[in-house]
This record gives sequence, structure tokens and C-alpha cells, in this order.
Amino acid sequence: MSLLDETIAAVRPADRSAMADARAHQDRLTKPRGSLGVLEDVAVRLAGAAGVSPPPLPAPAALAIFAADHGVHARGVSPWPQEVTTQMVANFTGRGAVANAFATQVGATVTVVDVGVATDLPEAPGLLIRKVAYGTADLSRGPAMTAEQAVAALETGISVAAQLIASGARCLITGDMGIANTTASAALISAFTGQDPAATTGRGTGIDDATHNHKIAIVREALDANFDGTLPAEGEALRTLAAVGGLEHAAIAGFILGAAATGVPVILDGVIAGSAALAAAALAPSVVDHCVAGHRSAEPGHRIALDHLGLRPLVDLELRLGEGTGGLLAHPLVCAAVRVMHEVATFDSAGVTDKQS
Amino acid sequence: MSLLDETIAAVRPADRSAMADARAHQDRLTKPRGSLGVLEDVAVRLAGAAGVSPPPLPAPAALAIFAADHGVHARGVSPWPQEVTTQMVANFTGRGAVANAFATQVGATVTVVDVGVATDLPEAPGLLIRKVAYGTADLSRGPAMTAEQAVAALETGISVAAQLIASGARCLITGDMGIANTTASAALISAFTGQDPAATTGRGTGIDDATHNHKIAIVREALDANFDGTLPAEGEALRTLAAVGGLEHAAIAGFILGAAATGVPVILDGVIAGSAALAAAALAPSVVDHCVAGHRSAEPGHRIALDHLGLRPLVDLELRLGEGTGGLLAHPLVCAAVRVMHEVATFDSAGVTDKQS
Repeated sequence: MSLLDETIAAVRPADRSAMADARAHQDRLTKPRGSLGVLEDVAVRLAGAAGVSPPPLPAPAALAIFAADHGVHARGVSPWPQEVTTQMVANFTGRGAVANAFATQVGATVTVVDVGVATDLPEAPGLLIRKVAYGTADLSRGPAMTAEQAVAALETGISVAAQLIASGARCLITGDMGIANTTASAALISAFTGQDPAATTGRGTGIDDATHNHKIAIVREALDANFDGTLPAEGEALRTLAAVGGLEHAAIAGFILGAAATGVPVILDGVIAGSAALAAAALAPSVVDHCVAGHRSAEPGHRIALDHLGLRPLVDLELRLGEGTGGLLAHPLVCAAVRVMHEVATFDSAGVTDKQS
Repeated sequence: MSLLDETIAAVRPADRSAMADARAHQDRLTKPRGSLGVLEDVAVRLAGAAGVSPPPLPAPAALAIFAADHGVHARGVSPWPQEVTTQMVANFTGRGAVANAFATQVGATVTVVDVGVATDLPEAPGLLIRKVAYGTADLSRGPAMTAEQAVAALETGISVAAQLIASGARCLITGDMGIANTTASAALISAFTGQDPAATTGRGTGIDDATHNHKIAIVREALDANFDGTLPAEGEALRTLAAVGGLEHAAIAGFILGAAATGVPVILDGVIAGSAALAAAALAPSVVDHCVAGHRSAEPGHRIALDHLGLRPLVDLELRLGEGTGGLLAHPLVCAAVRVMHEVATFDSAGVTDKQS
């Protein structure tokens, strides 16, 4: 049995009994029932994922930034040159990027994983070289990856999750870097949800109308080239991911599966993570029970992905940066939701009179 | 010159030059321009408030929970007995409330201020006894406070802000406790914005339709009793606050003024803070430049108050608890926004190629 198959088999659905216990516990705490809104749902979700109420505090957190390049970049879908992927990896390991600043703010570690950057990277602190290929093939002409490459990238993500958890992480946060990767995300979201490329394709880090229309056309070409104009059938998760995904999307899908298989919650960042989570959920539907949507990005496809997954994002501040920045910002909110379960007094213990019903 | 007058005179408008510098600095950082969305605006706002770019990191933070009771409680506007105000003060000082758990999560101190609780409170660690009165009079029959009481509560808030800043706080967060205080908030919001009580009055910590309709009628009575059916004129800020506010609303308004006068930013919690900020802004319009809206509560009046103030909330998770909980959750986001300005590399310094325009 492969590491991927073992991991998929190990993902358990939410424990309904632990969720009911968590909900009942919330109702005994010294606050009006339901007054913590969405955060009560987060605590209940994490109890279900952990199989115990209250769930463990999801700290410390570890961010993994999976970096890779994209053959479709040659089609002119991004205003950024491809070498920016390599340059930003150096910026991450030099602790100069926004993800580094946010990680410092929330006390998370940062690990960068080269799963498919187009150049050979020098060794650097915090960088894992796990290159599966020097970037993907052009998804608008045919499959971006072979099935073997997709599995290798998935298993890379699984291994990185295991390594971070072994190092003490109790919450994983997804991050990404890859110039042109919102094009692959849009194609994945269209393939997995059936939504038209015009709805799933956004402006990424900032493109004009003409480039946006061109990008939509490229995503449409990708679906036509890979699926003959008909959507992939259910059960074709791996083929779909390999056809129109990126190496970092596959690795993030594996990272999510690896966290879920170990019972450690994972906070999803933006549209790259959302599209990768669609692939992970297609491989193992219960994986969603272990995910928290960190934020909603400005990318239109992200909303579609989250709706499909049934996840509500915690932070909604029009971020469109990636790197894991939105996931990092959500981490204190997730911790706060769980901390309430451990530290807040009950009406009985605090001698507070309950509401008159 | 009174402490209140001195404080109002010391509130400076945002420094436009520092804001322009902050915006220009954001655009040099290694991220697509604008990609941090609302957080870029937060950093620029804090630069304006501080008069320097980058602005100082707004940490550590100090939460002040102003507690008071309300004569209007006797009209049956809340399902919670009045003694819960006193009980919750004990819960705060015993570190058993949600605000305590959230404060621990974000590293904020908690100070509880009795500015008008209806009972005599025992001394406790972290509790400041600054009682102006044993609760307000019933605002539905006439003024809730005398002008002298309102000024005393305002100056209490100013003094507490000064004390926390002297102790090292570089960000203040507003908190409140007072059974029935959403009724006073609704009346303040109607009085300051002209919106009908049906639009400004919510369900507080949870009431049924009949009680909600009754609460709307009580707010309408309060406006009629105090303002003869016509809205208070501009310039009548103090009389308006005294007429339909609570002692904690007045103290929070002072707390906001005190922070702003010292150039320390203040994160507003929910609808109580929003209505208090309307009073503070009526006394000193530039005070808004020093405020960050921490969150949007589920109370409908809060949205109206924030729109009137021109503030966009950072956290929007259907919280309706008060205590400062929404403000606390926003603190890491505000810090993250400012940290970017200090720690993120520029395109030049990191050797990252800028977007091709």
C-alpha cells in the first residue's frame, strides 16, 4: 500500500459525539448561548476532528510554503516574470516576506518546500528541496503532470506534514508560491465544481481586463485539452489534479491529507489551498472535517471552492497575496475559539445567574 | 480648563504626510500592490494617527472593561437579571470570562473599571473602583445622567487611558459590561445618526420577538422623553450622551478621547463602543482617525454606527458578546498590518523583480 493510499485510508470523519459534547459545553459557559457566533462552530469542528471535547489547543502552528513553477506561464497569464518564484523563495528564507512577518506575529514556524521550482535552488535555512520536476507542463495543451508526478508531489506534502507534526506542530497552515498558480487553481475549481472558467478565474495578483479575458480563455483551453469538453467523472480525482493542477497544489492536497490522517487541524489559506482542498476532498471526503478556512481571498474562484467544501472563512479582508498569509491571520482566531473551551468558567462554577427563559 | 476640555483640545487629526509616506512604503514592499487589502489601509491609518511612517507596533495592548448598570433595566428590556453585571465583574477579576481567555491569547492585560455598578463591589486584583453613581436613571423617562455625571464618567475613561499608557500599553481596547446596555447604545445611535429605533435596536444577548418590539418602543420613548421628538442639535454631544447613554458609554467615550489625545491607537469592540465612539466623535471629530473598528457585531445598530463613523470592521464573525471580545480578536490583525511595514523587504532590498506594467 502506498503512502498516499495509507494516508487516505487513515482519514477519519468527524466524531459526532465529541461535537455534541463540545456544543453542550459551549452552552454552559458564562456567555449568552451562541454569542461567539462562528467561533463556536470552529471549536465544535475541531472537537470533531480531534475526537475529544475540548479539543487540544491548536498551537504551536507551522506554515509550509510549497513553491513550484507552471508551464502555463508561457501563455502570458501573469504580469510577473517566472523567476519571481525563485526570488520569493529566497525572500522567504531570508525572512523578508509578508508571510514571515505574519508568522512572527502569530508565533508560527515557516518551512519552504521546493516541490517544483524551475531552477535549482541553493540550500538555505528552512528550505526543503523536494523537487518533483522543474515546473509543470503547459496545462492548456495537455496534462500538467504525469500521474507519477502528481503522486510524488502529494506524498511530498504528506511527508512534510508528518515532519512538522513530529517537530511539535499542533496546527498546520498551508502556503504557496508559484507565479501563474491562480490559473491552475481556476482550472481545478472548474474541473471539480463544474463552474464555468469565467466564474472561477480571477485577476490573481493584479491583471488588466485584456489579460483577465485571455486567462479565462486559457483555462477553458485547459479543460478542453484535458477533458474533451466534458467534466471529469467522480473518482477521477488524481487524473484531474495531474491534468490541470500545479505541483504545489498537489503537495498542498497531500499536506492537508497528512494533517487530517494524524488528527491535526489544518488552516487553509486562499484560492490555491481551496483548489487543492477540492482535490484532497475528492480523494478522501472526510478530510474537510479537519480543515478550517482561514480566509476568503479576493479571487472569485475561492468563494466557489469554499462553498463546494462547505467551509466558512474566518478572515475576509480582501487579501490576494497567498504565501499562507490569510491562514496565518486566522490562527489566533482559531486558538481563541478553542481556548474558550479550556479556560472560561461555567455559570455554575462562576456563580453567574443564567438568562431567564 | 477641565481634563475633558484639555483632552478634546489635544486630539489631532491624522497626519496626511505620514499617511502618504506609509502608502508609498507599502507599494515598495515585496508583494503585489494592494494585495493586503484592508490591512494596508489599517497600517496607513495608524501612520496617520501616530504622525510617523511606519507607525509604532501597537503592542502590548490593554483592555479596559467599563462596567455599569442601567435604570432602564427595570423596563424589562433584557432577559438577564441586573445582578449579572456584578457577577460578571467577579468573573472578569477571577479570569473566568471569554474576554480573559481572548486576552491571554493575544497577550493583552485586562483592567475592569466599576464606573457605575449598582452594588458596592469588593476589592479585587485588576479592578478599579471609580464609581460615578449606582447605575443610571431610567433613560425612557428622562435623562439617564446629569451633565456632571456624564463628565465624571468621561474623565474616568480619560484617566484610565492615561494610566494604562503610563504602564506601557501601546494599544487600547474598549470593553464593556452592563446588563441592558444595548438599549442605551440603540438610543445613542438613533440620537447621533437620526436613524429610527427600529433600525438601531437589536436583540442584544438574545431576546424574543415580543421583547425586541418592547425594546424598540422603550428606545422610542427615550428619544421622545429627552429630545421632545426632535433630534438633538449638533453641538449637543454632552447633553445627548447624558440623556440616553450609560455610565460605561460615557467612560468608553472618554477612554477613546484619552487614547487619541496621547496618539495611542484604540481598537473599538462592538455596538457599545460604536455608540460611545459616536459621542466621542461628536465631542472631537478627529478622534475617529485614531480608532480601528475591531469587529462588527450581530447588532444592527453597530453597522449604522460604523457607517456613520466611516470605519470598516476587521472581524465579522457574528459575535454578540461584548466585554471587548471582538476588539481583542482584532489586535493580532492590527499588529500584523503594522509589522509588515517594519519587517518586509522591498523589491530593491530583496532583489525581487517587480511586476511588468
